[in-house]
Amino acid sequence: MFGGKELRHVLTLASQWTRVASGSAPNTLRWNSPFIHTSSCQRKCELTSKRYQVERGKYGQVSEENIKFFTDLLGPHRIILGEAELEGHNTDWLETVRGASSVLLKPKTTEEVSSILSHCNQHRLAVCPQGGNTGLVGGSVPVFDEVIISMNLMNKVENVDTWAGVVTCQSGCVLEALDQHVAEYGLMVPLDLGAKGSCHIGGNASTNAGGLRLLRYGSLHGSILGVEAVLASGEVVDCMTAMKKDNTGYDLKHLFIGSEGTLGVITKLAINCPSRPQAVNLAFLGLNTYDDVLKTFVAAKKQLGEILSSCEFIDRSSLECVEKNLNLKAPISSHEYYMLIETSGSNGTHDEEKLNNFLENVLGSGTVSDGTVASEPSRMLHIWALRERIAEALTREGYTYKYDISLPLTHFYKMVEDMREHLGPTVMRCCGYGHIGDGNLHLNITTHEFEKDVLNKIEPALYEWTSKVNGSISAEHGLGFKKRNYIHYSKSAGAVTLMKQMKKLLDPNGILNPYKVLPDD
Amino acid sequence: MFGGKELRHVLTLASQWTRVASGSAPNTLRWNSPFIHTSSCQRKCELTSKRYQVERGKYGQVSEENIKFFTDLLGPHRIILGEAELEGHNTDWLETVRGASSVLLKPKTTEEVSSILSHCNQHRLAVCPQGGNTGLVGGSVPVFDEVIISMNLMNKVENVDTWAGVVTCQSGCVLEALDQHVAEYGLMVPLDLGAKGSCHIGGNASTNAGGLRLLRYGSLHGSILGVEAVLASGEVVDCMTAMKKDNTGYDLKHLFIGSEGTLGVITKLAINCPSRPQAVNLAFLGLNTYDDVLKTFVAAKKQLGEILSSCEFIDRSSLECVEKNLNLKAPISSHEYYMLIETSGSNGTHDEEKLNNFLENVLGSGTVSDGTVASEPSRMLHIWALRERIAEALTREGYTYKYDISLPLTHFYKMVEDMREHLGPTVMRCCGYGHIGDGNLHLNITTHEFEKDVLNKIEPALYEWTSKVNGSISAEHGLGFKKRNYIHYSKSAGAVTLMKQMKKLLDPNGILNPYKVLPDD
Repeated sequence: MFGGKELRHVLTLASQWTRVASGSAPNTLRWNSPFIHTSSCQRKCELTSKRYQVERGKYGQVSEENIKFFTDLLGPHRIILGEAELEGHNTDWLETVRGASSVLLKPKTTEEVSSILSHCNQHRLAVCPQGGNTGLVGGSVPVFDEVIISMNLMNKVENVDTWAGVVTCQSGCVLEALDQHVAEYGLMVPLDLGAKGSCHIGGNASTNAGGLRLLRYGSLHGSILGVEAVLASGEVVDCMTAMKKDNTGYDLKHLFIGSEGTLGVITKLAINCPSRPQAVNLAFLGLNTYDDVLKTFVAAKKQLGEILSSCEFIDRSSLECVEKNLNLKAPISSHEYYMLIETSGSNGTHDEEKLNNFLENVLGSGTVSDGTVASEPSRMLHIWALRERIAEALTREGYTYKYDISLPLTHFYKMVEDMREHLGPTVMRCCGYGHIGDGNLHLNITTHEFEKDVLNKIEPALYEWTSKVNGSISAEHGLGFKKRNYIHYSKSAGAVTLMKQMKKLLDPNGILNPYKVLPDD
Repeated sequence: MFGGKELRHVLTLASQWTRVASGSAPNTLRWNSPFIHTSSCQRKCELTSKRYQVERGKYGQVSEENIKFFTDLLGPHRIILGEAELEGHNTDWLETVRGASSVLLKPKTTEEVSSILSHCNQHRLAVCPQGGNTGLVGGSVPVFDEVIISMNLMNKVENVDTWAGVVTCQSGCVLEALDQHVAEYGLMVPLDLGAKGSCHIGGNASTNAGGLRLLRYGSLHGSILGVEAVLASGEVVDCMTAMKKDNTGYDLKHLFIGSEGTLGVITKLAINCPSRPQAVNLAFLGLNTYDDVLKTFVAAKKQLGEILSSCEFIDRSSLECVEKNLNLKAPISSHEYYMLIETSGSNGTHDEEKLNNFLENVLGSGTVSDGTVASEPSRMLHIWALRERIAEALTREGYTYKYDISLPLTHFYKMVEDMREHLGPTVMRCCGYGHIGDGNLHLNITTHEFEKDVLNKIEPALYEWTSKVNGSISAEHGLGFKKRNYIHYSKSAGAVTLMKQMKKLLDPNGILNPYKVLPDD
């Protein structure tokens, strides 16, 4: 069960979302409810250490002396003690991994993060930095008794440079709140994903989140201009430029983007924010063959060009799952495949004309079998829910084996077909959806309960398949705890060795988010 | 004087440009002649080691045994010996720095680069990796007798994934040739700069080149998907994914992007290529105040939105310089400031309508005083030449003190005014131009000959000024040899220490491009 404090906090995030979603700006219509812990008190998952048989590292155990130090530093209200009180922070959203931390700290400043880390490093206490805890690979919760450093209170927006279009903020800002903040200046955060109502921008940076608009606005390695991070030693690394171009030495900020809190804790960010679009349109299309899907994507890139802002894919089974479990209804008849194609631009008339021409072409040629277009916020919200709530719908069926793979587009759907055949009737569902515009497939498999045999049938077969076609075994979710030992399917031995050397250099005692990202020795 | 072989090579590059420029694809109309060594044989600049009083590191000297190893590896035609023969490779394009290497190697494969580096590392021979040698901070030529590894022959395009829009190639591909190659598939390389006819894509990556379209397509840290690099030890680090999303461990490729060949030699790249625009328009505007320039930029971002592909700035002195020294003529009357605003889109009619509306607004309000629009390739070429040939025009006046600064837009032109006042009549010219859309100012100062006193009056005053307003002392040119000791004006001591630790980790003997990027101890 959530402790009183934590429950209130979750409610704050939830109501924040409600407030935002009731606005009419087309860019804010994202469903984030899957990422709020509503049921963790009803069903308690097995401890990670037990399920995965992990051995605890030789770290110190939190003592009275440590607690006194933290309390002196933060005061009594920003330290939460007790394993039961921390259940929501020990368990991931999917309820597939569970740690046993009994200390959570809530710093408000970089200096406090620095003091915490310096102390933990001296006492060899392992730590788990935690943002919105919306991660899907077990990276954001402790594995054992790591001290949780929650970034919840580090949520100040420090500056918006309206000339250049750059926001500077602390890392604990909730993505959606930050986007709403810059919206007041006609800007947008160039990242959008289902969890936006809960996830932190610092967590997004630490996991190099991709999301729904990477196709248009590129990766965070391009959008993030500056990073301030604290090393394990407590040393603050200041790479906090807000300049769009800065070629002065090695660009250290990239060390912290995507390293999932294992090289440093991100405390501050500067982010390039594009102009907010004036017009948004969304098409929902039905298609009969995967070949048609591919053709439609290429046609969209060519004909919609610079206004294409999202190109998403859903297969029949994924849509069935969301219709059945969440009582949602697709706006067109049943098809083998569906696509969501979103345009965002500065001139609504131009955008509509481009989109209509495109639709006439793909419908006229028979490449697309059926389709509908929405530009009213409520209809777009409904259509987006069909895509964004699939993750939530899947959890209603029991245990979800969740995979996030990059594949060459020629092999994209073949993986789902092959896996379905490989698993046969032993599973409830094997379905695929995702960001086809980025070659990013979310492959999901469900069973009533977690079954080790099913897991063993999926892994490492799935990774071998992916590796053979030069895909990536984790497109945007990261490796976290669950996939760390499969890194070799996507990275060479030499690259992994170099990663380990860098970890050793930046965190010699290995206190930062242990058991994550890097494979066991 | 160039050796026969080298001169022929330069001619090949030059004629390659001519061929390309005579085509009609609007995206290829770039002038690159400033980056071809035409005059290095006429005027020989002082040795870097003497002018800057640098001390040679404790490296080995190339022996007969080393030459034999290289010759056995590459054959007699891919090793060039003799300081005189290498003059074009020892001197930078600006003719401001000159090394004294007597060995140049031309590998064709990653394996050859690996063998060369492994051998050099064992024998403590310093090396200078060299692409198109178009760098402006002395990073691409040796300081002493470093072995030059020329990437000229590593120019194979390996694959174009037309579904995803990704090109995979060796690092020695000339940027313009690569762009022409992908143009055949309706794609473009998301980078464009004046030196495109000579510079290598690997050099662009190593220096994190910015250029004319960063505003639209973002930085290379976002566009480059995969990198293969060879470490000093000869070990090949394979991060060669062609996937748009790949979150499997630390993203090591960023170590090599922008580190100017000091951490590894890039041998292969995978680059995300956007759809090639169907229509390009270019406006050349005259403005009376800097405040008007700022307002016009913000209006362009808002009203042109997604079709804005370049926003460039020229001051009166820069335009006068190009008109006087290159006999070019501006298409509008004289103004204090000029802007080039380029649009690229998928629908010519829509783009023209947006551009016309924008121009009506800014001309109607008096923000812009005069302007002209071009969409025919020849007229666009002429207008672009006014911007792109400024660097060349400046060299005609004598010695150029060249600075490439990022600044908050509120301080952008104040720097030029302050520097002009600070230097007074001791210099011939003090002018500013650049990528205002990225906050990137090219400040240039000229005197008849190099004058140490003038240099001392500019530096470090200029860097202090930049640092005070939180700018960057090198926006896109890098630190190379010339700016390495000023890194502290843009980076914290802690960050520099971490950079040195990383250098030590990746290149323990310091053989890779020494005397560059990192400050002297």
